[in-house]
Amino acid sequence: MALITLTTDFGRTSPYVAVMKGVILSLDPHATLIDLSHEIRPQNLRQASYFLGTATPYFPAGTIHLCVVDPGVGSSRAALCIEQAGRYFVGPDNGLFTHVLTQGPAIIHQLTNPQFWRTPTPSATFHGRDIFAPVAAHLSRGSQPAQFGPLLSQPVLLPLPTAVIQGRRWQGSVQFIDDFGNIITNIPAAQPLSQLVKVTIQNKPVGVLRWVRTYSEALPGQWIGLTSSDGFCEIAEVNGHAARSIGVEEGDTVEWEWQ
Amino acid sequence: MALITLTTDFGRTSPYVAVMKGVILSLDPHATLIDLSHEIRPQNLRQASYFLGTATPYFPAGTIHLCVVDPGVGSSRAALCIEQAGRYFVGPDNGLFTHVLTQGPAIIHQLTNPQFWRTPTPSATFHGRDIFAPVAAHLSRGSQPAQFGPLLSQPVLLPLPTAVIQGRRWQGSVQFIDDFGNIITNIPAAQPLSQLVKVTIQNKPVGVLRWVRTYSEALPGQWIGLTSSDGFCEIAEVNGHAARSIGVEEGDTVEWEWQ
Amino acid sequence: MALITLTTDFGRTSPYVAVMKGVILSLDPHATLIDLSHEIRPQNLRQASYFLGTATPYFPAGTIHLCVVDPGVGSSRAALCIEQAGRYFVGPDNGLFTHVLTQGPAIIHQLTNPQFWRTPTPSATFHGRDIFAPVAAHLSRGSQPAQFGPLLSQPVLLPLPTAVIQGRRWQGSVQFIDDFGNIITNIPAAQPLSQLVKVTIQNKPVGVLRWVRTYSEALPGQWIGLTSSDGFCEIAEVNGHAARSIGVEEGDTVEWEWQ
Repeated sequence: MALITLTTDFGRTSPYVAVMKGVILSLDPHATLIDLSHEIRPQNLRQASYFLGTATPYFPAGTIHLCVVDPGVGSSRAALCIEQAGRYFVGPDNGLFTHVLTQGPAIIHQLTNPQFWRTPTPSATFHGRDIFAPVAAHLSRGSQPAQFGPLLSQPVLLPLPTAVIQGRRWQGSVQFIDDFGNIITNIPAAQPLSQLVKVTIQNKPVGVLRWVRTYSEALPGQWIGLTSSDGFCEIAEVNGHAARSIGVEEGDTVEWEWQ
Repeated sequence: MALITLTTDFGRTSPYVAVMKGVILSLDPHATLIDLSHEIRPQNLRQASYFLGTATPYFPAGTIHLCVVDPGVGSSRAALCIEQAGRYFVGPDNGLFTHVLTQGPAIIHQLTNPQFWRTPTPSATFHGRDIFAPVAAHLSRGSQPAQFGPLLSQPVLLPLPTAVIQGRRWQGSVQFIDDFGNIITNIPAAQPLSQLVKVTIQNKPVGVLRWVRTYSEALPGQWIGLTSSDGFCEIAEVNGHAARSIGVEEGDTVEWEWQ
Repeated sequence: MALITLTTDFGRTSPYVAVMKGVILSLDPHATLIDLSHEIRPQNLRQASYFLGTATPYFPAGTIHLCVVDPGVGSSRAALCIEQAGRYFVGPDNGLFTHVLTQGPAIIHQLTNPQFWRTPTPSATFHGRDIFAPVAAHLSRGSQPAQFGPLLSQPVLLPLPTAVIQGRRWQGSVQFIDDFGNIITNIPAAQPLSQLVKVTIQNKPVGVLRWVRTYSEALPGQWIGLTSSDGFCEIAEVNGHAARSIGVEEGDTVEWEWQ
């Protein structure tokens, strides 16, 4: 009854995701595989970390999250099994789990024991196939993280930009742009201070936006500010694609001034 | 042994589909999840309705279809559980189920009972997570639709364009453009009246097309008319992308004159 | 406990994949469905064959691989069930299984017995729904390939370009471009003859590349040669998209000269 989710930047045309599924099911034919996303932007660790931090808390205890965004594959970067609040994460030690690791204490083991790899001589370019997928499958079959290798106490963490709240002037950055083009900032959506907010992104004025509770309170084409589903200040163009309309990218600075 | 399918316009980069899967599996770890599509075009209710009407009749009785294309999320639009011919649909009351509802009588309940929600204070922007996914999971665990809320007798229906057959001159519109670029009209493919058909789309002449039984009867690059796999008049450019080649969009008018 | 994988060129917006899943689950509700890819490029048999030959060897014995890339649907091309080393392939006889068939002896049956089809009068445009999906489901429920139809001894095979190794000068072609833009040639990555290799693709000079063991040995933007995860000479632009940067397509010729 093991549940293994898969999150990668491998895309949908390449055979790499299929290969990992085959490796897992060869070791544990009873595992249930759940695709989270294979369209993390190539090598984008920050985006992957946000994705995992947002999605995985909703999964049941015992779920194994296999995550492979791995620009440093084949280098000396460590390979990890993270145990946190009853859930497991398997993937490279490169910052991929930064958001997850802020969510509570974790026990982290390295994956140095070749007994749990697919081969004692793994490829230098595809640890997803040769190390991470087999370890996830062994975990789902009942192996204990302590068997995989020694403890690791200082995992790599990405520097996450912080938001600053000063009176009516809030500052932060673009944390995520979703498939609708909605712009999710990293500014926590506290109590709004008025009905209107002046927004500037990466020094480009976006305009004075109306603060609403939900998209349907505005007309198609109107720009609004609202609370994102994960609790941050969000900027949206109703029925449009806000990020494309004004050329925003993840990481851009955001000025948020209540009028 | 519950089967829950998922159809959304959430795309593949955003964490929203993953979040819904986590919510379902937390409530019913035994549910089998089947992705139908997460690439319905954003807020395109007509496309989503066609997709559901075409795909879901092939699923076994008892299947639960969770469908979230929801531009009116957070407004007063109702939330629904539809029971029809032994299958279930869970999603917003905005026309998403128009094609499905033409396929036979249905019993429709609203989802007003917060006992089946993820939280009594759902987000104003993500009912997929807070209402629809939990209701689908409760349904798969054996809850009855009547527990979710009162009956609803007049669901929202999209106005669907009709086709007109007059002698050798048939008129209709573009119902769907598939990933190959094949143009599926809403004109039922009755007995062809000749071997050649003159086609005009949105007042642009497409040409005189040969009527064939299957793509391989024509050469690459040739334009043909044929019966689509769901029984409508279809226009295709063999090994090409007909819709892109001539700039067609869903909803465009189609004139179909047998020569 | 049957495992059925799906590989198609149907894309993600069309209902065709969903329809096939419904057909399978209606016949065998206990089948486990695993998506491999639905983004094989339209009608690209060579790409599909490479994909299947690369991914399917990692799956456990008994797996049923349902594969539909079928430009000749409705013509006289045969429909196949291939048994090879304990795994099964169901799909059209058009070269789709070329790479797989080079991997060992196979027993091939045609799918001529309408008893295993969805209907005795299948559509001329969607055998995935009417023949291949139902046969895969019957196979997973225990039917034997010999029941589906007579043996076929000469399946269609695509002509695969060969690589030529002559001293320091190796020649071949581009076998696959992955989602990262990495260029996988068909030249087996034997022992490197030096640290530098001069590469020319389709008569365009790419440059003199450093041969490395893994991506992280070079800096972002640098061009490198290395062994691909499936054992061929690969050309990559670190953190870039090599194929797009220099305009390479699958099938292009590759000159590979050790310096």
